[in-house]
Amino acid sequence: MISLLGRRSISSVPSSSLALGFAKHGSPNSVLSVQRITLDPPSPSQITIKFLAATINPSDVNQIQGTYPILPAFKKNLLEHNKDEQFAIGGNEGVAEIVHVGKNVNTQNSWAKVGTRVVMRHAGFGTWRQFSHATPEDLIPLPHPSLPTEAAATLMVNPCTAYRMLLDFVPLSPGDVVIQNGANSAVGQAVIQIARTRGIKTVNIIRGTLSDGLPRPGLELLKKKLTDMGADLVVTEEEMRSRETGAKILELGNGKAPKLGFNCVGGKSGANVARNLENGGVMVTYGGMSKEPVTAPTSLLIFKDLQLKGFWMTRWNESCDTDPEREKERIKMIRELSELVVNKQLLLPEVESVSIKSTDDLEIVKAAFDKAMRGGSSTKQIIQFA
Amino acid sequence: MISLLGRRSISSVPSSSLALGFAKHGSPNSVLSVQRITLDPPSPSQITIKFLAATINPSDVNQIQGTYPILPAFKKNLLEHNKDEQFAIGGNEGVAEIVHVGKNVNTQNSWAKVGTRVVMRHAGFGTWRQFSHATPEDLIPLPHPSLPTEAAATLMVNPCTAYRMLLDFVPLSPGDVVIQNGANSAVGQAVIQIARTRGIKTVNIIRGTLSDGLPRPGLELLKKKLTDMGADLVVTEEEMRSRETGAKILELGNGKAPKLGFNCVGGKSGANVARNLENGGVMVTYGGMSKEPVTAPTSLLIFKDLQLKGFWMTRWNESCDTDPEREKERIKMIRELSELVVNKQLLLPEVESVSIKSTDDLEIVKAAFDKAMRGGSSTKQIIQFA
Repeated sequence: MISLLGRRSISSVPSSSLALGFAKHGSPNSVLSVQRITLDPPSPSQITIKFLAATINPSDVNQIQGTYPILPAFKKNLLEHNKDEQFAIGGNEGVAEIVHVGKNVNTQNSWAKVGTRVVMRHAGFGTWRQFSHATPEDLIPLPHPSLPTEAAATLMVNPCTAYRMLLDFVPLSPGDVVIQNGANSAVGQAVIQIARTRGIKTVNIIRGTLSDGLPRPGLELLKKKLTDMGADLVVTEEEMRSRETGAKILELGNGKAPKLGFNCVGGKSGANVARNLENGGVMVTYGGMSKEPVTAPTSLLIFKDLQLKGFWMTRWNESCDTDPEREKERIKMIRELSELVVNKQLLLPEVESVSIKSTDDLEIVKAAFDKAMRGGSSTKQIIQFA
Repeated sequence: MISLLGRRSISSVPSSSLALGFAKHGSPNSVLSVQRITLDPPSPSQITIKFLAATINPSDVNQIQGTYPILPAFKKNLLEHNKDEQFAIGGNEGVAEIVHVGKNVNTQNSWAKVGTRVVMRHAGFGTWRQFSHATPEDLIPLPHPSLPTEAAATLMVNPCTAYRMLLDFVPLSPGDVVIQNGANSAVGQAVIQIARTRGIKTVNIIRGTLSDGLPRPGLELLKKKLTDMGADLVVTEEEMRSRETGAKILELGNGKAPKLGFNCVGGKSGANVARNLENGGVMVTYGGMSKEPVTAPTSLLIFKDLQLKGFWMTRWNESCDTDPEREKERIKMIRELSELVVNKQLLLPEVESVSIKSTDDLEIVKAAFDKAMRGGSSTKQIIQFA
């Protein structure tokens, strides 16, 4: 009876899978291809998963270009029709469903059941594919069956980054103020909403002009959107220069300047964040959209005791492997963020889905990468295999 | 008998004192003057001190210019011959000798005896004068009667800065490496020597060219001087760009990059320090000689988890007022540094003394400030009243 069940389960595992990846580094539109890859029969200690949706994040693009600190491995014997060619499967973030559990999978992993939705424990899994085998150590089960697939696919990078930056650098109490640039980014929006649930106020800096110097279209609508999310103050980079803005920021904190700042731009914009922090404040850099270095006047470091730090979600995730307390903290974070989404206290950016049905569907992939790399839009591109 | 002794003691306290200071902010050579100031009879709870030597530091110059975060107060009724004119006495660092102790001075301060040498507990005391009254809380007694006066006058700013930066930011063990720019500064030289006594290795960056682009005269002699002090590697800013230097730095740490860096220059030079730190390393900025901001590539903060911090000896000293443990730590630091000086393990920069005998001696003061502000020279100017 057991062996019959085992065989029935195995029979639901296909022997091949569609995958999106690359055989060499370069610009996404020149090196990406959709391939059919071999899926060997799973070992008794493996779990087989079917991806429901996988995200295209900026870091994925840098991985394809070869400029990211963590790069997926090129492997041979992966492509079904060309065993000699090397290939790397892209994608770090995504949500999958368990379709098969090997009979030797550790019974301690009681979540490892057909139907459980999972996200990836480590960066570099290669989430842009239909099916994959995994070990329990590769996967984290998702709470909340009512969490929408799109939210599950976009939860682990941007909202988790916002959550950790709000919790891990400076102890904040209700009424405290944080200041951030790039406030319309996916992380920025999550910061606004998570901060609101904790009674923390936010000063949000956005660009008022485009790179050609012309006014940003829809600026007032964007301000309204962020305000509706819970932003306490939304100002443009240009407005940051006025005394009036400085007074408003102090007023927001009842006379106290923000003790925590988030910077995803660099250059002058980052210095704007730093300049508005109170003595002993911390600025956390998690991105560098301007491609300019992080800069702060010497006097802010010496006389105001400012600290400039960085945050990388991947490094935090890796530290969970060796620190059981941190692993518990991660489970708590995923549960809390899922609850916020389900309760509509955390609205994630809208997604546009790219549906890949065959190895011929490269044009729609390229269109999706064009959108993902264009910036400015806050819509996330996700990949789904039909 | 007691009253007689008391009177004898009072009689050694003069009713006026020479002082160097300024009636308004500006360039030292345009606003400084030597004045005779009134010294009221001391109250029974005061100590009267006679300055033996007081230092001219760069921060003193910034105070005169009015650009420093802490400024001495302008006071009326201070000048003997012009009660209506306001005047601020310059100088933050110096060593004095107790010449009178009021009869109500707390007996807990057993060090408060005629003849004890003291340094200032707080910045802004106004050390450029012959005599002053003080309370026990203004003063710290010096250990080691054999500590030379010149060393005592220059101990509390630069060597203490080096000591604290080596101890307070990253736990270092023998064999660990620190990297610093401006290595020929008074702090830089103290870093080299204190590090050596603790088995910590130093990479020392100096300028190989002057601001006009010409080679620095005496470069090889300077390298030899720092090496003789205990520097493990001395390189120019230009040599920092070579792979060979990178390899030498790693070799010094047995394959591990420095985990701590000190920056007193800013701009590209600071970025050079940051770039050579290991993952999770800390760069401490304590000066900004280039007048350029502190700068680091975004990736160093995000992917290498670098931290940029600042250090200001004045803030550290102020924290001793509210933290008894830190006050103990300060006493320990002064004792250790004094021992290093007495044992010739810490050679302080040579001093040039300006002897002021009357209110007419302004020209020699101006010459001393010219030298102090010129930079490049590592000789310290100290003020002594004849």
